[in-house]
Amino acid sequence: MNSSTSPAADYLHLVRMGIDTHQQPVVFIRSDCHVAIAEGFNANAQVEIHTTDQRLVAQLVLVTNDRLPCEQAALSEAAWRRLGCPPEGEKAWLHHAHPVESMSYVRGKLYGERFDQQRARAIINDIHAGLYSDIQLSAYVTACAGDRLDTDETIAITRAMVDSGLRLEWDNDVVLDKHCVGGLPANRTTPIVVAIVAANGLLMPKTSSRAITSPAGTADTMETLTHVQLGFEQMQQVVEKTGACLAWGGSVSLSPTDDMIIRIERALDLDSEGQLVASVISKKVAAGATHVLIDIPVGPTAKVRSEEKAHKLRQLLETTAAAMGLQVRTVISDGSQPIGRGIGPALEARDVLQVLQNDLHAPQDLRQKSLQLAAALLEMGAAAEPGSGHQLAERTLLSGAAWQQFERICQAQGGLKQPQPGAFSHCIYASHGGVVAYFNNRFLARLASLAGAPNAPGAGIELHVRLGDEVRAGAPLFTLYAQAAGELAYALDFLDGHTDVIRIEEELV
Amino acid sequence: MNSSTSPAADYLHLVRMGIDTHQQPVVFIRSDCHVAIAEGFNANAQVEIHTTDQRLVAQLVLVTNDRLPCEQAALSEAAWRRLGCPPEGEKAWLHHAHPVESMSYVRGKLYGERFDQQRARAIINDIHAGLYSDIQLSAYVTACAGDRLDTDETIAITRAMVDSGLRLEWDNDVVLDKHCVGGLPANRTTPIVVAIVAANGLLMPKTSSRAITSPAGTADTMETLTHVQLGFEQMQQVVEKTGACLAWGGSVSLSPTDDMIIRIERALDLDSEGQLVASVISKKVAAGATHVLIDIPVGPTAKVRSEEKAHKLRQLLETTAAAMGLQVRTVISDGSQPIGRGIGPALEARDVLQVLQNDLHAPQDLRQKSLQLAAALLEMGAAAEPGSGHQLAERTLLSGAAWQQFERICQAQGGLKQPQPGAFSHCIYASHGGVVAYFNNRFLARLASLAGAPNAPGAGIELHVRLGDEVRAGAPLFTLYAQAAGELAYALDFLDGHTDVIRIEEELV
Repeated sequence: MNSSTSPAADYLHLVRMGIDTHQQPVVFIRSDCHVAIAEGFNANAQVEIHTTDQRLVAQLVLVTNDRLPCEQAALSEAAWRRLGCPPEGEKAWLHHAHPVESMSYVRGKLYGERFDQQRARAIINDIHAGLYSDIQLSAYVTACAGDRLDTDETIAITRAMVDSGLRLEWDNDVVLDKHCVGGLPANRTTPIVVAIVAANGLLMPKTSSRAITSPAGTADTMETLTHVQLGFEQMQQVVEKTGACLAWGGSVSLSPTDDMIIRIERALDLDSEGQLVASVISKKVAAGATHVLIDIPVGPTAKVRSEEKAHKLRQLLETTAAAMGLQVRTVISDGSQPIGRGIGPALEARDVLQVLQNDLHAPQDLRQKSLQLAAALLEMGAAAEPGSGHQLAERTLLSGAAWQQFERICQAQGGLKQPQPGAFSHCIYASHGGVVAYFNNRFLARLASLAGAPNAPGAGIELHVRLGDEVRAGAPLFTLYAQAAGELAYALDFLDGHTDVIRIEEELV
Repeated sequence: MNSSTSPAADYLHLVRMGIDTHQQPVVFIRSDCHVAIAEGFNANAQVEIHTTDQRLVAQLVLVTNDRLPCEQAALSEAAWRRLGCPPEGEKAWLHHAHPVESMSYVRGKLYGERFDQQRARAIINDIHAGLYSDIQLSAYVTACAGDRLDTDETIAITRAMVDSGLRLEWDNDVVLDKHCVGGLPANRTTPIVVAIVAANGLLMPKTSSRAITSPAGTADTMETLTHVQLGFEQMQQVVEKTGACLAWGGSVSLSPTDDMIIRIERALDLDSEGQLVASVISKKVAAGATHVLIDIPVGPTAKVRSEEKAHKLRQLLETTAAAMGLQVRTVISDGSQPIGRGIGPALEARDVLQVLQNDLHAPQDLRQKSLQLAAALLEMGAAAEPGSGHQLAERTLLSGAAWQQFERICQAQGGLKQPQPGAFSHCIYASHGGVVAYFNNRFLARLASLAGAPNAPGAGIELHVRLGDEVRAGAPLFTLYAQAAGELAYALDFLDGHTDVIRIEEELV
């Protein structure tokens, strides 16, 4: 510490506290230090910290004992990173954060005002600058939920999100992408589709999200197979080499506000249709895509529960995409049960490898759905005539070309790993015989999340049955995996109260 | 520390960390401790802590260095208090917090479902139990904002809030209370009204809130004059002695969820009509009132901006009150400018003393409005015939009986103090001559808040002019007070960008 600090100095010296508060930046100062007194700070206030060249808004925690010296301001890891990793002892000035002016637009929205382009931009820019506290982010997410964003507002938010981050550019005229609206556990088609499409010479630089409320996003699953946190330059190198990549979108600063919004949506188990469309389309535009295939699974316990809602969502997706200059094709698919056997990053990755390697044990539903989506993309990219995409996709898979392409992509991203299911497992058996009649996707997803997915990549579920299967009493229905005993117990607790995860109906004789 | 802790123990030892996180309970544990590993904890997760006899949900912070030993769980002040102030080293078990089931009702509300009595009770009970994180509380507050609670929902929330706390009972048939919907800075009539009414033998055990988004609530103002944090027994003693009290509602556990909701509303600068009515009526019912007078100031920059909205609010207040068995009378008053000179706890208290002491310098508008409200209550309580309440109120004030009654109440609450305006002040002068044509109540309130009110009780504004006053260039308009130089500077900063706090219009000749 700099011992020359006089009591009258209006700054504090930064130290790294070694405290993980996730993405929320936090700063700790003594309640009786000169800055706290001069500024009249209260606990949990939002304060602006600035050094000679960086600026950040963080949550203030007041320390009331002498574990922290009076002349220090101790930063959580998130705060330290976002201030550019300042050296120990760097001078910093702390002030009350200015009221976030764009929050008045969020409040206005609750009273029926709309987001025009200027308001959308102000909100997204303030979120991007880290000016929104978690409480304020939660109010924004909640204000948008329940279909309260109309088409123009969705387009305005989409444009603001694109403009707040990097935008990739590729030389090709056709740059393919795909997206699944989700809500269906497992359903990990993307790595297979990308491999098939890229093996046919089309460009598909795929960036994916982490899970919002599901047990795994494509980025979470791919992370069990290779590195996904590619910087922009590394991503370009991978795409140059292989015509494709399978990267995490957050690490290349595409639509960077999205991850901040997603974190709150996850905590609330809530996402809005308009915000969902803005999130999807902004990521695609920022990734430089020209043609996008969007899969909307529909089922009673999927995210989209009726054909009617699927058509409404398709409409909003297509209109927003068109406004942003994107070509979009939408597939409405069966969302009544998971696709594939595994739910959770490592277990899904195992399914993906089996399909790509033409393993006889590979889940056929995942194989079929991947071929269907790859076929559509091959046709959109003009690698196949309309109607002959499926044949080409299947040939690419059977010949091993897709698997080789997948290996090339993973090698270029830093090497191919073997996914590791969690060491703790527990099998659930049928209590009576009958026919598998119903999967509660939401309960399955919740169960896998409680077991630790996606943060624990080996956690999740392996399904042993499909809709329509006949089972006897005592037959295995699914196995629960976890990386920690506590998490396994926690998931089993949930199962105690929710027996209707998979329903077996006795056959009428 | 207990050195017998084996690595296999499934508990940690509690220590008090000396960290003020306001009302948010936080627990710090090492990221590499056995409990964090066994449970698979992530930073910022909600965790349940239980000791042998207490239970609490807190936010988890992971410590990544050795400032904290592996076998300890360090509690923030709020967590420590809510766990019943456990002794150093007490054993505690930490687990993932169960998902808060009632959040599904909050999500449902966003999609058009309604709160019935069971749902309202589930939400309020979970909030009361401390199960809602700040993010979840923010979603609840936002979901209710924008007039989204209908009458039945408002009644359901009101009943749930009453049932979650204590309910006071008084022997009298008539127990009077009053409330002002707010939004008007200053307007501190309550202490004067209570003194006049109680001096005439009526029972008025008044509990008040702290400020929501305003620079002071009645409890904040009264706190500069006497003790307001009375326990229930002390409050009863004061009321027995004097027929009245002027206490903070939060300290007697009346509608305890209200303060938790208010904290979030304040952070968002947002409150909903339904939640406002639930808050007001639940407090009155819980306080044991039978007859309540409600003042709704209306003005372009008051909380209620039009007669139409005032009538809608009156309707909701009266219907909800009736459902809860309360008699309510509503006064719609002029909210175009502050009432009284002072804005902020100490400055408002000074006005109150001047009126009660028949000081010649006392603000006449505050005096008149207090007499009007006291008159209505004297008539509601049958101490005066209809039409003669005003005469009785004025006599009570002029004779000194009201002041003596106020002194008695303060003495019974622990003594009468002199309010102290902040030591830092700055006078704002008219830039040109003319007539005072407009007060922006919101800007005035914001300015007083930025200067530190209500947390700094001496902070605020003293007004030197009223609507219609003629002023010359250079005449003093108002003086800003603060307790810290930083806060004064911060408020003056705001003034730089918002010159239209008080508008002077030049007269046409």
